[in-house]
Amino acid sequence: MDDRELLQVVTGIVGKENTTDDCAVVSCGERLMVITTDMLHRTTDFAEGMSDWQIGWMSAAVTLSDIASMGADPEYLLIAVGLDDWKNLAGVMQGAQDCCIRYGAVIIGGDIDRHGELTVVTTGIGLVDRDRIVRRTGAQPGDLVCVTGTPGQAQAYLDGYSRYEKALFEPQPRVEEGKRLGRSGVSAMMDDSDGIALSLYDLLSVNECGFSLDSAKIPLPAEIPDGQAQELALFGGGDYELIFTLPPKRHPVEDVPYTIIGTAIKEKTVLIDGRQLEKRGYQHCWE
Amino acid sequence: MDDRELLQVVTGIVGKENTTDDCAVVSCGERLMVITTDMLHRTTDFAEGMSDWQIGWMSAAVTLSDIASMGADPEYLLIAVGLDDWKNLAGVMQGAQDCCIRYGAVIIGGDIDRHGELTVVTTGIGLVDRDRIVRRTGAQPGDLVCVTGTPGQAQAYLDGYSRYEKALFEPQPRVEEGKRLGRSGVSAMMDDSDGIALSLYDLLSVNECGFSLDSAKIPLPAEIPDGQAQELALFGGGDYELIFTLPPKRHPVEDVPYTIIGTAIKEKTVLIDGRQLEKRGYQHCWE
Repeated sequence: MDDRELLQVVTGIVGKENTTDDCAVVSCGERLMVITTDMLHRTTDFAEGMSDWQIGWMSAAVTLSDIASMGADPEYLLIAVGLDDWKNLAGVMQGAQDCCIRYGAVIIGGDIDRHGELTVVTTGIGLVDRDRIVRRTGAQPGDLVCVTGTPGQAQAYLDGYSRYEKALFEPQPRVEEGKRLGRSGVSAMMDDSDGIALSLYDLLSVNECGFSLDSAKIPLPAEIPDGQAQELALFGGGDYELIFTLPPKRHPVEDVPYTIIGTAIKEKTVLIDGRQLEKRGYQHCWE
Repeated sequence: MDDRELLQVVTGIVGKENTTDDCAVVSCGERLMVITTDMLHRTTDFAEGMSDWQIGWMSAAVTLSDIASMGADPEYLLIAVGLDDWKNLAGVMQGAQDCCIRYGAVIIGGDIDRHGELTVVTTGIGLVDRDRIVRRTGAQPGDLVCVTGTPGQAQAYLDGYSRYEKALFEPQPRVEEGKRLGRSGVSAMMDDSDGIALSLYDLLSVNECGFSLDSAKIPLPAEIPDGQAQELALFGGGDYELIFTLPPKRHPVEDVPYTIIGTAIKEKTVLIDGRQLEKRGYQHCWE
């Protein structure tokens, strides 16, 4: 049983409509509101060595990344903190606050609970114009498959490359990039927090097309042997880059650094260099 | 260190503005949106003997109660579930879903995480007209102090009165009552989840007036000796009744069963039968 199988249990009860995208979408006056919640906790999500401040930063960042992936403007954050030691609270809150300030959101509420293990749940709310929202659906054969930044860096740290510590400990959600991409007419988007491969399989599951990658085009973390670097980029977790499909006539999008790594294809599959891409990446495992 | 002292750590970082009420309040077109998040987990919040379904129900109910206490209409719920055993998920989700259906909210998102202990974080969103929102502030000397229902029943179960199991395991948020009270011009309101005493001290801390209770007027759980029943009503936790102040000319409010238990007074204190009420109730303790 993995995360995606467990999600089927949920959709069987609450319906599928609101589990497709990185955020739920509801009306808010003339605009749309996007809403998302993320639960993180020490043993599974916060790497050893992270400071309280970094834990708070990361907790806010992962939620702001979900908002960014819809092309929306982050507005509000709520943060619930389960503490085994109350002395962690100030650092966690300061990290979350600093991340929100950096990306234009305001912490408007929260909860504190005593807990056997440090747990942080952030709920983020963003706003976006109706004609600028980007969903996971909408990719068309012929669209370019693109990614911001250099995926694989967060996982590289976990695999022993200490120079990539900040990539894992202080992820930078692609908020400005997400908004620009939304204005520029990208056809589908999500963040790649479980790795490029699983992200593309998630996009595959909700679109009528497939995707074909060119391995030579994937930007790779520096100073790592090519084979390992590609493994990290495709299957590693902990990155918060945006992966999106772009109609060729919309390319290039100004002021957004991104790399074209493949194209959307008619066949309902995910290929790399013409062969099927393995469907694996970061997932919790359930016994 | 208790919950309320720990909250000072938070307000020192994120500011005080959004920690006064049961929910944060933001604009949403012409109306106001109220938002709240609650973290619950097995050892602290879910009593022994609760089913998965009841855990899900309660998790939704506590958040809907916060929305009700602002006079707002519950609209949306997000639910993050940390699981030590994935087999609990379906029951928890069904309970939350049934509670939302009962009170008019829709589950629009969530997250699942592997966790050492069952943890549920619900985030609720409600809408309310600008002139009908009720906050914790606004009480005036001379207002009536009122409470819905019969407080103390949830704590009664914990103290051995098994007939009150449902009060603790399946709390019924006062959603319709909250909306009617909002339309009827109550001056201040909150839910009494930490007991009447702490609720009144919370109201004291944000209002310019105090409160004086008449112990003989407090409705008490049946078939419990009077002294113990009063202790439960004043200091017990786990109820989700509404406690509110009402200008006398607004009394009675139609179709809302409530009891007048005291009056708001000029003196900045909380009295019962003329003596100071002890400031204690349900709080987490922090070492």
